Amino acid sequence: MKRTLLIALAIFTLALATARAQEPVKTIAERLGYPRDTKLLIVHADDLGMTHSVNRATMQALKTGLVNSGSIMVPCPWLSEIAEYARTNPQADLGLHLTLTSEWTNLRWGPVSSKDRVSSLISPDGYFYLTETEAAEHADPKQVEIEIMAQIEKARALGIQPTHLDSHMGTLYQNKELFEVFLRVARSQKLPVRVSRADFPPELLAQGDAYIDRVLTITPAVAPQDWAKFYSDALSKLEPGVTEAVIHLAYDDAEMQGATFNHPNWGAAWRQRDLDFFTSEAFRKLLQENQIKLITWRELGKLIK
Amino acid sequence: MKRTLLIALAIFTLALATARAQEPVKTIAERLGYPRDTKLLIVHADDLGMTHSVNRATMQALKTGLVNSGSIMVPCPWLSEIAEYARTNPQADLGLHLTLTSEWTNLRWGPVSSKDRVSSLISPDGYFYLTETEAAEHADPKQVEIEIMAQIEKARALGIQPTHLDSHMGTLYQNKELFEVFLRVARSQKLPVRVSRADFPPELLAQGDAYIDRVLTITPAVAPQDWAKFYSDALSKLEPGVTEAVIHLAYDDAEMQGATFNHPNWGAAWRQRDLDFFTSEAFRKLLQENQIKLITWRELGKLIK
Repeated sequence: MKRTLLIALAIFTLALATARAQEPVKTIAERLGYPRDTKLLIVHADDLGMTHSVNRATMQALKTGLVNSGSIMVPCPWLSEIAEYARTNPQADLGLHLTLTSEWTNLRWGPVSSKDRVSSLISPDGYFYLTETEAAEHADPKQVEIEIMAQIEKARALGIQPTHLDSHMGTLYQNKELFEVFLRVARSQKLPVRVSRADFPPELLAQGDAYIDRVLTITPAVAPQDWAKFYSDALSKLEPGVTEAVIHLAYDDAEMQGATFNHPNWGAAWRQRDLDFFTSEAFRKLLQENQIKLITWRELGKLIK
Repeated sequence: MKRTLLIALAIFTLALATARAQEPVKTIAERLGYPRDTKLLIVHADDLGMTHSVNRATMQALKTGLVNSGSIMVPCPWLSEIAEYARTNPQADLGLHLTLTSEWTNLRWGPVSSKDRVSSLISPDGYFYLTETEAAEHADPKQVEIEIMAQIEKARALGIQPTHLDSHMGTLYQNKELFEVFLRVARSQKLPVRVSRADFPPELLAQGDAYIDRVLTITPAVAPQDWAKFYSDALSKLEPGVTEAVIHLAYDDAEMQGATFNHPNWGAAWRQRDLDFFTSEAFRKLLQENQIKLITWRELGKLIK
């Protein structure tokens, strides 16, 4: 009898597991109220606050409605300009591009916190480290939490109501400890984060959080003349679910050229190409032809209780 | 006998004092080895490091030799670019424009020191105060000394060998306590300072220091179309001794327009006018016609033992 019971229990458990596996988990699109096969896109400009050129280009792009989201670097010199924009455009979908690196050799920035409190984030030259690798290597996770909380508090003090959080140069994805700080802070703030199901193993992602399905971003492998083709192809093949197009906008002007002079990747001309494509009629047409619907982080944020 | 002695002593003392009064005090020009009536001019660009536009315009102007000096704002975002220039042009006459204000509403900066240590210098928005009046009103002189020493140390760590010190927006001239900190730091660093005999009572000026005789600087009262006339008149009437022409250089470009959008005084177009005049052949001719000799702060610094 003992044996029969065990077999029965095993069969029951198996049946239950199968039933659960068959019951489809709701996709993000469905949780947002869209049919499962809807193609949803956030067109998101990074690095707001870095320079006047970035700010001006992004404000121009947001006006078209084709670029519909962006995130702000609180430690950067031109923060006040974009904070003013955020205050006068409270409907704009603006998040915080949490910043722990200062990557341009001629134009530097450092922490919002008092330096003594976040010494592990500061390179010998007194600014944030130049690369995400160095930053992650030296960063004390406790000090990272202090600094990113300080960035959030400063943004709120300036009247920015962030709709989401992401991580400049991906520093907060560099190791498990930093990633945990990132998610903990996001949960404490009830804000969605740039974490895509395509890039992270499911066991890291908690049920209550809101994620995107994938990130679409151009890479240095694409030649300048192939810029429009790369994006057109990607949009034509866009899969259902939530995609975030992570783009970088600025003018190819003296200021941006000065900042990025030794780094053509994500440089001035790169950003002008992104600006040109994502504010073009060609892009608007691609959205229509491929039945792509634009959504914002604000909508995703509503999934968080 | 006692009385006779006293009278003799009095006569002797009086004679000595008269002799001293008649012996002419050496002028700065004479201390520098020039005849007393020589017209000496430093053509000095302020605000280096503030923006790429300021840096680029000043580097262009220094190349002409007509602008021959400048001072650097260590807390500003583009410091690294001008520090690189200083390292590769060690002959350049570059000083430090000690900075305790952050006056442009869209483009802000704060202290080099850890914020906890210089809290009296920081406005509620987390940056330096917008005006020299507010800065001076709140500044604890001890914290001012900490901060300006930190600026000097940071400059030296970046390979800048400052030839002189001056004070951005004149904050360090706002009250006696701050002025004393300024002079004490300058003496400890054995550096000459922008203190003109025309502006300060002699009792404030110690013998061992090196000063200039006067500052020549344009004001908002001059209409844009009268820019060249103002400078031409001033140079034609230049008095003997050491004059420092304090000028502000930048291009009238998008970055400068963005920074100074709500403040035409010392704004983008203002700085372009200064750049145009001080790199012109007309200015070169005025120097020749009026027998004006350019000197640098480096020369003045040699007077300090």
